[in-house]
Amino acid sequence: MIHIAVMGYGTVGSGVVEVFYKNRESIQRKIGNKPMDIKYILDLRDFPDSPYAGKMIKDFNIIADDPDIEIVAEVMGGLEPAFTFTKTCLERGKSVVTSNKELVAARGAELLEIARRNNVNFFFEASVGGGIPIIRPLHSSLAANEIDEIAGILNGTTNFILTKMIKEQMAFDDALALAQKLGYAERNPSADVDGHDACRKICILASLSFGNHIYPEFVHTEGIRNVTLEDVAYAENWGGVIKLIGRAKRSEEGGGIFAMVSPALISHDSQLSSVDDVFNGILVRGDATGDVVFYGKGAGKLPTASAVIADIVDAVKSTSTSKSLHWQDDGKNHVLDYRQQKGAFYLRMEGVEEGVQRARELFGEIRLLHRQGQPENEFAFVTPVLSESAMEEKSAELEKSGCRRIAMLRVLDY
Amino acid sequence: MIHIAVMGYGTVGSGVVEVFYKNRESIQRKIGNKPMDIKYILDLRDFPDSPYAGKMIKDFNIIADDPDIEIVAEVMGGLEPAFTFTKTCLERGKSVVTSNKELVAARGAELLEIARRNNVNFFFEASVGGGIPIIRPLHSSLAANEIDEIAGILNGTTNFILTKMIKEQMAFDDALALAQKLGYAERNPSADVDGHDACRKICILASLSFGNHIYPEFVHTEGIRNVTLEDVAYAENWGGVIKLIGRAKRSEEGGGIFAMVSPALISHDSQLSSVDDVFNGILVRGDATGDVVFYGKGAGKLPTASAVIADIVDAVKSTSTSKSLHWQDDGKNHVLDYRQQKGAFYLRMEGVEEGVQRARELFGEIRLLHRQGQPENEFAFVTPVLSESAMEEKSAELEKSGCRRIAMLRVLDY
Repeated sequence: MIHIAVMGYGTVGSGVVEVFYKNRESIQRKIGNKPMDIKYILDLRDFPDSPYAGKMIKDFNIIADDPDIEIVAEVMGGLEPAFTFTKTCLERGKSVVTSNKELVAARGAELLEIARRNNVNFFFEASVGGGIPIIRPLHSSLAANEIDEIAGILNGTTNFILTKMIKEQMAFDDALALAQKLGYAERNPSADVDGHDACRKICILASLSFGNHIYPEFVHTEGIRNVTLEDVAYAENWGGVIKLIGRAKRSEEGGGIFAMVSPALISHDSQLSSVDDVFNGILVRGDATGDVVFYGKGAGKLPTASAVIADIVDAVKSTSTSKSLHWQDDGKNHVLDYRQQKGAFYLRMEGVEEGVQRARELFGEIRLLHRQGQPENEFAFVTPVLSESAMEEKSAELEKSGCRRIAMLRVLDY
Repeated sequence: MIHIAVMGYGTVGSGVVEVFYKNRESIQRKIGNKPMDIKYILDLRDFPDSPYAGKMIKDFNIIADDPDIEIVAEVMGGLEPAFTFTKTCLERGKSVVTSNKELVAARGAELLEIARRNNVNFFFEASVGGGIPIIRPLHSSLAANEIDEIAGILNGTTNFILTKMIKEQMAFDDALALAQKLGYAERNPSADVDGHDACRKICILASLSFGNHIYPEFVHTEGIRNVTLEDVAYAENWGGVIKLIGRAKRSEEGGGIFAMVSPALISHDSQLSSVDDVFNGILVRGDATGDVVFYGKGAGKLPTASAVIADIVDAVKSTSTSKSLHWQDDGKNHVLDYRQQKGAFYLRMEGVEEGVQRARELFGEIRLLHRQGQPENEFAFVTPVLSESAMEEKSAELEKSGCRRIAMLRVLDY
């Protein structure tokens, strides 16, 4: 019998237990019909009416000290006590699977190394993209590729808000209130709308893709609070939509990673442009495969639970530490200054009459955009490709002629 | 040293060798820095100028008899000698990875069983979807799901042709000629345009998803030769596009599989509708994850080669036969009569004046469609949901009133 412990009985934890017992037979078939059961569910709260009340415990040491427990699902969230519990389990020879993106983004390299030393596994498919298989494809199916770039719509809450703004011309505040009402956004929505959640996820994907731990604090992160319906209208005129994109790529000169989270213009031709509502979409650009896109529900009880259980199955099947699921932490920051990254930019200005002419002189061939109800003294345009620092210089120069910048967004070319 | 043999030095085979040597270092890192090399390349042709001329052999027995060879990549295509060679390798304790969809669709269950008996692996990620990870996610990442349905744009050639018809109003014959000129279609394009290639692929996906071998000969298969620009225009008016879709689902009553390959109307809201040109897209509907979609290049030298190499890496990492990559062949046909499957249908009729009224009497609430240049005596509509056999009966009844059916297509709701 393979004994499992589940730490945390919140949304994801109760989903893990539910999906496990619902599909137990077919799950066991996938591991060669070995019997498998959940022995403990750790939570400080009481669940007297739960059918699993007999499995509920409040003391972590029961799990740590029970040699029967081979696999632990950490679905509590947060850094502590999740980190200490996970570390202890790995050191006691138990594999740990987690949905905890904060934990992986902050301490992933360290926990992977502890797992390796103890010949067990630390898996985290559920930490990015909910039920979308992305971690395993990245290190396993795309093993033959050098991954050049990875970009995605990684946060369902902000994507829901932007979709409402784009499709129903709902203002940001109203869309946020609706997301809160529907339970997609927290009362304090900062982790979502300010981009921190997406940032943790792109850091996990970048660490795995490029081999070095990428820390969230070094990744320039902007949320969607400043995106307006006017910007949405200009984006539509340009031929696309505004999405919150987490992205990371190898610098072409080598020796570093460009990484950023920000709202950006995405062309209607891109597969990412049609990822709507609470769905996520992740694009992986490999040297051999070209672009591969993964799409699905990025959050939610059952999708996330299914990813946790897929990791449990994989942990049962593994006889030693996965060698492909790995990255190192050499203590250095591998993220380059985002102002050196090149791209096109969308700028919206409150302008003087000569503003457009001045913008042409400064930026070269710009593409002017239009919207319904555009005031006479407003103009918006997309620049040619240049570095962000060069754009900022030229934009400041433009403001000297009497214009005022209202908005700036990156224009991506996936 | 891990020794590999590559059987077949055509497009995929030469791609495997190219990608292997290009990314050898990072591939070896994924297997814990074990050294790995290609020892033999089997092909009946001479390649005197190849940098790998020293590895070229023409006698399969050299591979079969060499105990150094642990892993064989079968990338010859066709049923024989691929089947005999693969079987022999597995029986001699060598894992085999293949891109050969014909082989897997015809003899997959048998070869998986031979692999199991010899404690080696038979992997075939490259047989469906080229460089898109789909086989491994299906049996590994989605392990916690009961898969209810799977549907995809599985053939790049026909998708290129349909895209030209939809986006450039190119007639089928011209689009086919262009595909041939660009090297996307063979001189004899039947395997692609008549749906046989898509059929093999949906059979592989269905076998893996539902656990029983699904044979191509039992799957109702229609190609795209009869799709016209008039149908494309009506589909646009309906709010979607025509795509060649391979699909398989569990019957809701249980006890069988509905499977079909046919052109079908797909709503613009569907992720599959924006899969254009030679790209593939595969939708997997699981009970826990909901819909997950995989998108990428479905064919081509480097994408397919990268999938073959991912399988090689996985074979090196495996210490025994994968228990999740498995289905059985009980000798029975599990495919249900497609005429019992329910759905909506698009019908285009050359009609008498009372045709529309008669259609309403027969089908109930129909949705009339329109197109530019629609002749007065033509009408097209989408039916409510009914079984295909009921639709055929009513359609025949409608023709008795003096109408003539010009076209019929299924309307899907992904």
